[in-house]
Amino acid sequence: MTNTRPLAVVLLSGGLDSTTSLAIAITEGFEPCALTFAYGQRHRLELEAAASIVREYGVVRHVVFPIDLRAFGGSALTDDIAVPKGRSAEECYHSIPATYVPARNTVFLSVALAWAETLGSKDIFIGVNSLDYSGYPDCRPEFIAAFESLANLATKAGIEDGKPLKIHAPLLHMTKAEIVRKGTELGVDYRRTCSCYDPNPQGEACGQCDACTLRLIGFSANGLTDPIRYASSTGNTA
Amino acid sequence: MTNTRPLAVVLLSGGLDSTTSLAIAITEGFEPCALTFAYGQRHRLELEAAASIVREYGVVRHVVFPIDLRAFGGSALTDDIAVPKGRSAEECYHSIPATYVPARNTVFLSVALAWAETLGSKDIFIGVNSLDYSGYPDCRPEFIAAFESLANLATKAGIEDGKPLKIHAPLLHMTKAEIVRKGTELGVDYRRTCSCYDPNPQGEACGQCDACTLRLIGFSANGLTDPIRYASSTGNTA
Repeated sequence: MTNTRPLAVVLLSGGLDSTTSLAIAITEGFEPCALTFAYGQRHRLELEAAASIVREYGVVRHVVFPIDLRAFGGSALTDDIAVPKGRSAEECYHSIPATYVPARNTVFLSVALAWAETLGSKDIFIGVNSLDYSGYPDCRPEFIAAFESLANLATKAGIEDGKPLKIHAPLLHMTKAEIVRKGTELGVDYRRTCSCYDPNPQGEACGQCDACTLRLIGFSANGLTDPIRYASSTGNTA
Repeated sequence: MTNTRPLAVVLLSGGLDSTTSLAIAITEGFEPCALTFAYGQRHRLELEAAASIVREYGVVRHVVFPIDLRAFGGSALTDDIAVPKGRSAEECYHSIPATYVPARNTVFLSVALAWAETLGSKDIFIGVNSLDYSGYPDCRPEFIAAFESLANLATKAGIEDGKPLKIHAPLLHMTKAEIVRKGTELGVDYRRTCSCYDPNPQGEACGQCDACTLRLIGFSANGLTDPIRYASSTGNTA
């Protein structure tokens, strides 16, 4: 092996944001180690999307980590609460929706930290975005900064050598339009991604949940058509 | 229901420390919700101990949360690395042993936070101890303080109401002798607890791993005999 790129743990849900974050990690010179959570999602399409993206990028290390947050309930993504539909962009931006999973990013980053420490990696990438998801407390810049501080106190690495652990959140201050533009520049194949909270049995996105609403805005703002399939009469068919 | 005690999530491994922490949470007026991790331990006796303790205290809510940190390797508790034996108390206190699980307490507290937020609880108890385990970065007071800060940024609760979330670590500054004295005062039945990293098939503690070494010091310093069973020629048979 002549590969000397530093390892980075990259959280990869299979959605638009995390896939763009993966492309950025690679562009920045990291060897990505992709971490996908199987967390009691209501559909498995996200996991298939993540696997497809990992193949596309030739990622050697991909861990699908099972963690069942349904044990505690409390979210439309893991419970039987209905996924909210037809919210305005303004509502998506600012109010905490029923799809909020308690402490989700804290749990995900903690597990990423465990892997990073095992690998000897000092870099973790997460595709959080404070503009599109200002309603989520664990997507805020101050949350990312606090987790980075914690990570450096929590690990042997933080004690034993001088190089601090860094949480990279390259999309933190980007709008969805900027994310789509960046990913498109980097050649991301968005056909492989899956963002919808409630796809139909044919795997078509609903076009009406918060994730679809924001995603569609991201493409249309760039004069692009989202390449994924939407259920008829919704999405970017207009 | 006339019970108006505030709910607290209590991390309960089934060991001496976490059981004492549970007893303290109850004494302080909390209704405990016990959280035990099935994390790829090499033995299941800890889980049986936790179940026994929960029954003893009449704890209504007990979640055994599966999380397989073996996915990443890196520890004698989850891998096939030999458990270190016969280390001096000094070594146990100050050097990071092979039984260190990367980022373990960060992962455990994150999951506890997810449950606390779902329950509407503002209190999490963890039985970490900075004196006996100074070699573990995630048992230090500054780690606990950093996690508390993070928890208040990470959750809806931290945004929506004024009462901050608190991480209680009542054993943080206690020696093992002080912990055993406190638990004994509170009537903890230490026969139900399991601390050994490497018990034999009969369920007897080895008496020689770090956990046994420190536990035995805790009892003998109080002039007490540890009530659990040890393999012959080890433990507190002298």
